[in-house]
Amino acid sequence: MDKIPILRMGSFLLVTIQVDLYDRLALNLEADLVQMVQKTNARGVLIDISAVSIVDSFMGRIIGNIASMSKILDAETVVVGMQPAVAITLIELGLPLKGVHTALNMEKGMDLLKSMIDTPEEEANDQPLDDFVAE
Amino acid sequence: MDKIPILRMGSFLLVTIQVDLYDRLALNLEADLVQMVQKTNARGVLIDISAVSIVDSFMGRIIGNIASMSKILDAETVVVGMQPAVAITLIELGLPLKGVHTALNMEKGMDLLKSMIDTPEEEANDQPLDDFVAE
Repeated sequence: MDKIPILRMGSFLLVTIQVDLYDRLALNLEADLVQMVQKTNARGVLIDISAVSIVDSFMGRIIGNIASMSKILDAETVVVGMQPAVAITLIELGLPLKGVHTALNMEKGMDLLKSMIDTPEEEANDQPLDDFVAE
Repeated sequence: MDKIPILRMGSFLLVTIQVDLYDRLALNLEADLVQMVQKTNARGVLIDISAVSIVDSFMGRIIGNIASMSKILDAETVVVGMQPAVAITLIELGLPLKGVHTALNMEKGMDLLKSMIDTPEEEANDQPLDDFVAE
């Protein structure tokens, strides 16, 4: 497969990286993602890398590129689900992923994006407290 | 990679299938998914197959199995993003995916799940209208 699917959720885009990013796939992803940001007026990009167990400088650079490109188009990028070993490798490689926000998991990443863009979303959890029912 | 990542979003689980499902991968996915449904009290499972261009009877059966297993655990399954060619193939193979709900894309799938389970969610769009600001 030459494409990584990009899912739209409200004003966010979600990408799950499950395969090794070789050259063409990575370039396709960059191109698709910026086009999609522009087409859908997305305000945030969530990249899930929980299935990625090995990271190299190429992949680090691609993620950095995506974040920079999205930023120019006024969308924030959050990388979620990084495995501890990947974090170790990134730092040992001297790639601290500048300009990229990270979060432990998808939900925290979504919360982070929401807090960063703070627009009155349909999904914003700002409904009155009396809607809550104690479980 | 031997695992397909399962992302949690509120009370839904999201799975994006990007690679061909061979035996072990499919069985792992089934097992992981039902465990995850049980662990997270998920009420819905979204399976995105927009990257799947070829489907066979094995894959059809796996999706059917996941839906049946989730149903027993009180979670609905929605398959989203099916390519037209895949829909044609499924019907020609005589696999109408019984018990599986489908939706055109992720957002519609999410709406469908919400309407099926109609619980007062954090993400439910039931906040008062005066919270909205005209753009």
